[in-house]
Amino acid sequence: MVEISLEIVDRIISNALDEDCGIGDLTTECIVPLDLIAQGEFLAKEDLVLAGWPVAVRVFQKICPAISAETAFVEGDLVQSGRVFGRVRGPVAKLLTGERVALNFLQRLSGIATQTRNYVNAVSGTKAVILDTRKTTPGLRILEKYAVRMGGGKNHRFGLYDGVLIKENHIIAGGGVREAIRRARDRMDHLKRIEIEVTNLEELNQALGAEADIILLDNMTVPQVKEAIDQVCGRALLEVSGGIRLENVRQYALTGIDFISVGALTHSSKAVDISLEISL
Amino acid sequence: MVEISLEIVDRIISNALDEDCGIGDLTTECIVPLDLIAQGEFLAKEDLVLAGWPVAVRVFQKICPAISAETAFVEGDLVQSGRVFGRVRGPVAKLLTGERVALNFLQRLSGIATQTRNYVNAVSGTKAVILDTRKTTPGLRILEKYAVRMGGGKNHRFGLYDGVLIKENHIIAGGGVREAIRRARDRMDHLKRIEIEVTNLEELNQALGAEADIILLDNMTVPQVKEAIDQVCGRALLEVSGGIRLENVRQYALTGIDFISVGALTHSSKAVDISLEISL
Amino acid sequence: MVEISLEIVDRIISNALDEDCGIGDLTTECIVPLDLIAQGEFLAKEDLVLAGWPVAVRVFQKICPAISAETAFVEGDLVQSGRVFGRVRGPVAKLLTGERVALNFLQRLSGIATQTRNYVNAVSGTKAVILDTRKTTPGLRILEKYAVRMGGGKNHRFGLYDGVLIKENHIIAGGGVREAIRRARDRMDHLKRIEIEVTNLEELNQALGAEADIILLDNMTVPQVKEAIDQVCGRALLEVSGGIRLENVRQYALTGIDFISVGALTHSSKAVDISLEISL
Amino acid sequence: MVEISLEIVDRIISNALDEDCGIGDLTTECIVPLDLIAQGEFLAKEDLVLAGWPVAVRVFQKICPAISAETAFVEGDLVQSGRVFGRVRGPVAKLLTGERVALNFLQRLSGIATQTRNYVNAVSGTKAVILDTRKTTPGLRILEKYAVRMGGGKNHRFGLYDGVLIKENHIIAGGGVREAIRRARDRMDHLKRIEIEVTNLEELNQALGAEADIILLDNMTVPQVKEAIDQVCGRALLEVSGGIRLENVRQYALTGIDFISVGALTHSSKAVDISLEISL
Amino acid sequence: MVEISLEIVDRIISNALDEDCGIGDLTTECIVPLDLIAQGEFLAKEDLVLAGWPVAVRVFQKICPAISAETAFVEGDLVQSGRVFGRVRGPVAKLLTGERVALNFLQRLSGIATQTRNYVNAVSGTKAVILDTRKTTPGLRILEKYAVRMGGGKNHRFGLYDGVLIKENHIIAGGGVREAIRRARDRMDHLKRIEIEVTNLEELNQALGAEADIILLDNMTVPQVKEAIDQVCGRALLEVSGGIRLENVRQYALTGIDFISVGALTHSSKAVDISLEISL
Amino acid sequence: MVEISLEIVDRIISNALDEDCGIGDLTTECIVPLDLIAQGEFLAKEDLVLAGWPVAVRVFQKICPAISAETAFVEGDLVQSGRVFGRVRGPVAKLLTGERVALNFLQRLSGIATQTRNYVNAVSGTKAVILDTRKTTPGLRILEKYAVRMGGGKNHRFGLYDGVLIKENHIIAGGGVREAIRRARDRMDHLKRIEIEVTNLEELNQALGAEADIILLDNMTVPQVKEAIDQVCGRALLEVSGGIRLENVRQYALTGIDFISVGALTHSSKAVDISLEISL
Repeated sequence: MVEISLEIVDRIISNALDEDCGIGDLTTECIVPLDLIAQGEFLAKEDLVLAGWPVAVRVFQKICPAISAETAFVEGDLVQSGRVFGRVRGPVAKLLTGERVALNFLQRLSGIATQTRNYVNAVSGTKAVILDTRKTTPGLRILEKYAVRMGGGKNHRFGLYDGVLIKENHIIAGGGVREAIRRARDRMDHLKRIEIEVTNLEELNQALGAEADIILLDNMTVPQVKEAIDQVCGRALLEVSGGIRLENVRQYALTGIDFISVGALTHSSKAVDISLEISL
Repeated sequence: MVEISLEIVDRIISNALDEDCGIGDLTTECIVPLDLIAQGEFLAKEDLVLAGWPVAVRVFQKICPAISAETAFVEGDLVQSGRVFGRVRGPVAKLLTGERVALNFLQRLSGIATQTRNYVNAVSGTKAVILDTRKTTPGLRILEKYAVRMGGGKNHRFGLYDGVLIKENHIIAGGGVREAIRRARDRMDHLKRIEIEVTNLEELNQALGAEADIILLDNMTVPQVKEAIDQVCGRALLEVSGGIRLENVRQYALTGIDFISVGALTHSSKAVDISLEISL
Repeated sequence: MVEISLEIVDRIISNALDEDCGIGDLTTECIVPLDLIAQGEFLAKEDLVLAGWPVAVRVFQKICPAISAETAFVEGDLVQSGRVFGRVRGPVAKLLTGERVALNFLQRLSGIATQTRNYVNAVSGTKAVILDTRKTTPGLRILEKYAVRMGGGKNHRFGLYDGVLIKENHIIAGGGVREAIRRARDRMDHLKRIEIEVTNLEELNQALGAEADIILLDNMTVPQVKEAIDQVCGRALLEVSGGIRLENVRQYALTGIDFISVGALTHSSKAVDISLEISL
Repeated sequence: MVEISLEIVDRIISNALDEDCGIGDLTTECIVPLDLIAQGEFLAKEDLVLAGWPVAVRVFQKICPAISAETAFVEGDLVQSGRVFGRVRGPVAKLLTGERVALNFLQRLSGIATQTRNYVNAVSGTKAVILDTRKTTPGLRILEKYAVRMGGGKNHRFGLYDGVLIKENHIIAGGGVREAIRRARDRMDHLKRIEIEVTNLEELNQALGAEADIILLDNMTVPQVKEAIDQVCGRALLEVSGGIRLENVRQYALTGIDFISVGALTHSSKAVDISLEISL
Repeated sequence: MVEISLEIVDRIISNALDEDCGIGDLTTECIVPLDLIAQGEFLAKEDLVLAGWPVAVRVFQKICPAISAETAFVEGDLVQSGRVFGRVRGPVAKLLTGERVALNFLQRLSGIATQTRNYVNAVSGTKAVILDTRKTTPGLRILEKYAVRMGGGKNHRFGLYDGVLIKENHIIAGGGVREAIRRARDRMDHLKRIEIEVTNLEELNQALGAEADIILLDNMTVPQVKEAIDQVCGRALLEVSGGIRLENVRQYALTGIDFISVGALTHSSKAVDISLEISL
Repeated sequence: MVEISLEIVDRIISNALDEDCGIGDLTTECIVPLDLIAQGEFLAKEDLVLAGWPVAVRVFQKICPAISAETAFVEGDLVQSGRVFGRVRGPVAKLLTGERVALNFLQRLSGIATQTRNYVNAVSGTKAVILDTRKTTPGLRILEKYAVRMGGGKNHRFGLYDGVLIKENHIIAGGGVREAIRRARDRMDHLKRIEIEVTNLEELNQALGAEADIILLDNMTVPQVKEAIDQVCGRALLEVSGGIRLENVRQYALTGIDFISVGALTHSSKAVDISLEISL
């Protein structure tokens, strides 16, 4: 998926608004006249890679279709600290009701995009592609994987249902490397490649022998990865995962590995600091 | 809410399983026999405060009611790195299908509880109560606020609909401090207290004059907080928010403030490292 | 909540239309041409306080966005018997399909507003505020509490989740008056006041001793209420409930009580008589 | 439908519980220990015809499957004031959470059954059958029509989709009495009878000429009804509606009319007084 | 229901789009620019009776409201092989995403309409009406019954809830023909006729004696149907079902039977061949 | 997906039951006592390949958990005409309510499995694999693809979201064969193969040049397919589609093609004849 499908995220937004607003925004309804119009400016309070602006806009327009929005930035753009990167305009009561939910999306998604960009920059000039994982926030995967793309990463499979990745536990329960690959090849539709996770060179050789399309090197050191690449010699695509940090990712990339998948992109990114400044 | 309501989280779990499994777990269905029984052990790979175990168990039992689970730990317990803190047993195919979703919940919630515990420990011996905010992951607020409690924190209001907190933008749009408080008092039901956010001592005095029940000191330094406490002199409860980090939270607590709310508890906690080890 | 949130009631309306229309309006579809335009006039057949007009309009527009509506009245206005208080215009087939559901909402909500107005008028000149209760029609609470406001009453808490009211059974199961208040104060977030129901003066004194914010006098006679007010002497807000009827509500109000809650506003109000007159 | 379908009402109950409980029962969760078991007795505080007991039980069991219930009464039984007519037993915290919703259903449905019984008794010994209408509470029709049956009445059509009733506005928009009946006969499936509403004897004769199966006499006086019956002379079934009250219903019944439909059964019945007495 | 209610089918369409598109249309999103506009022509590749055009259009407009559509045909029209019968225009990416779902609806519904038209034509000149049954595709009944109407057939009851049809198994379990009819008459609302299925002349006579409104002759030969019609002699409407094929339907019709119901209209119709030709 | 996931089909079943039963089964509720127990036998009235038995059982158990079921057959077994292949036992009223929906599923799914088996048998001894398509009934794809597997076929991709298939219209809108493949390869995750549809040998060569993983030969004759196979010479997997009928499928298979996809498996299979015989 290259573009974000706003139709699909509408359910996520509705859910988030229900959660926060329930039967109404007590404070605003008591205090703020409905006919007061205001403008809000989104201000980056640290350097960030923008992701989620269309989601934030959608939050406001779901609350009140009369709210308008504009930005000079494109998703994936770097926004420097101190810059106003977007504006919304409409009934101030509705801006206030949507503010927190809009920011919650925007700060989290831009946080993921920013962290992804750091990893992508760290491997620049190598052929390594930075991938995400399934270690995403329950319920937000489509958005978090979108944010990874905006940060310059690529997506791994979306879920258990659209790709085959045979992991250690499948090997244990599935009769070993060769047998597991054979079963998958036999039963899976012809449009899917078979990827298998290995933890040592012996399993790697079995995987090659069984003609795995892609081999995931699990928790290997840089020298181990190099040895694996030598051994495979182009007969399969190679991915490495586990123990990858911003500090060591370039070393892994310099081995010539095809893919590096990083769970931390989504499970431990911190929200970037963004504020919404309202003026009447 | 003192206990976690499993009934309510079932919708969140269903949502997460739909997202990850869609029409099925391709890899497992191809490879793993349905009648193979296994055991899985949850292993803490760093020190953590446990939160979300019942959610993880519920994930497995939703996939397969025959999966059993046991733990010797109670939510909120400290689990040391290297400890096995829970076991599940059932068809290995179903354990594998649920593994990632269960871990995604457990790692995130325990991450929040662990971070909260750090803050709570940092203010021990003071009267300050550590509170969360509405800066939660869209769709997971009920779970994240639960994790905060397990970490020893207390919850702020749940959403816009169950508590009144007049923020700067409400004051701007609502006719000033006094008028905003007056409108809230007039229209809100008699079971709600009125809290208002102030950014300087002048607003603080206006809030006191209008008999706010609780006053939130926004982004104030420790000396400013001290001055505010002197000025209020017990006439309202006081909360501070903004710029609080683990490094400085104790200084704020030592001022004698009633409440310290920390957005980072939920918006930027990192997932703790937990693995599920399967054995046949 | 001061204004009615049409977004929220849309689910209630959809539900009601599904219930009445199912797969279609057999009679109308057989008999009435789709291109016939008509006007409908809403006629008050008894004196009433108007509530629910926007809901009725929404019913029609959900069936057919081309239906227009106009009224010269504002919610909460008194409409005298014989007055036409609103008009709709559009395809007659669609007006007929929506007629009954629109009237069912309008007659019930105006019935509640009318009955509430009677109570409010009965206590005019006193400081007593007429409150509703949770004795509402399952599924319609948000609308019925809105109708109470349109009638001039105020709302009590919306549900179990947004306010604390310790009732007799909680006291029995919670260790007595003092202990119950202590537990609530200890565990509840700081934005909520604590209200407790008492049935005699001894419990009243315990509640005062435990610093309850609000005390509900349950099923007390007018003299008992007077004695309670004397005893409390401003140290807590006071509410009375139970056995209040239109005939005796003023006597209660004259005691100086703060709040009078009346279940009959919502559980036993009768629908006011309204008809929709269609003309081609 | 003769029996109440508990499966269908589960959605209504879920809806009602969501509405009242939202994220939790604050008061109970703070105060009442989860392991305390209690018994609750349902006490009739006025004479009533019982309807809705299975719904009330279902409310409790949805909250907590361990709650048990028993009654010596059957739906439709007369319960005299002062009688305990049912008992529930289980965790007191859960009984308290469900109490209000259970009572809201039970009081409303028994109220409808009680009022229906009054009408049915008033026409005893005649051939007139008491019918309900579509003037029900939005969202509760299936339950309210069930309550009418428990009171001894019969149901009219359930909604617009399962029966044909040509009303005045259909006649206006559908080319007159004869043409409207012709269109309905032509297009409607062969399992439906055609009923038409008439307001005078001329329309009655047209309806007879067009071979209507059932004719609804709208807002006619007792002498007018008598004349209509003479004129029809068994060629169609006859129903009367409009202006029927408990005081005059027997006079209408004595004319020999087949059906009397009464909107007040559902739109204006008052809740009967029932309390739930909890004891540890 | 005479016209198709697009509002109701929207849920079916959403469901179908979710099923096919899930998180996105991978191929199109990778390959096709979003700003490319194209036209698509619907081409009949065999003679067909058109049904479902508004559904197909709705599919595209749900994906992208900017897609426009036009046709010179009316539902129920015969479209000859080789004719272009409709055009859509909009972003080609969105046309491609909706193509298959739109065609799946259109081919199936036109297939049903075409087959129905064959049966209707086969009985032309007789008084026999061709009816559908409840043997429809789960989830698509409203659309399939619509397609039957477009083909010139009439609908039988929609489901179990809007008409009474006593079948053999009901007779066995309900105390015989007479008793079953008696119970239905007694308990069913007055707007419903009673139809009963009989398998021989003895049951037919019992049904007549119990004054069934309609009698369904199950699996009878043409001579048996003739004998039944003679015996009934206008005292009830007659329907025949079972073993009716296009080859023998006219013989049944020539007996003078009122209704002929044919399960194959919906359970075994084949999709007609339609293609969508895209041009930039 | 190798096994049918009953959890997933529950939503489809609920939907189907809602559609057929709505507010209740009028006939059965009027006529059949609730305490009458019966047995039902499923009888094959023609030779069939069984598929959908667990779905049928689930239909009954959703209506009434007390209904038990047994069969000596396994999904995919051939059942000969005249054989009883399954039994259900429980309250006859509930068996009657579920009968039609259960049969609608069973007859359709077994119809698809039976037709698929015919195709699979026709190509026996060749290496050709029979595949389904996305030409399925809206809303039933998961079940229909399951039925194809039970018939011995394999599934193509499930929807637009889990596999890449570049069709003619994508090529037109995507810059030609080479460019379309390049874009897909570049943007798609590494677990997906790229399949492309070609209509002539020139396109075939372009697809080979761009290293397509799989090539779909669209509407080619047997000799054209042979020529294509010669030209490809093992460099890609080959699939043929369009114009394949039971009569000519073996000729296609004998060319040495890898996959043959057949839309008629799902869009035009006829329901097999099955009856449910009830006995008290």
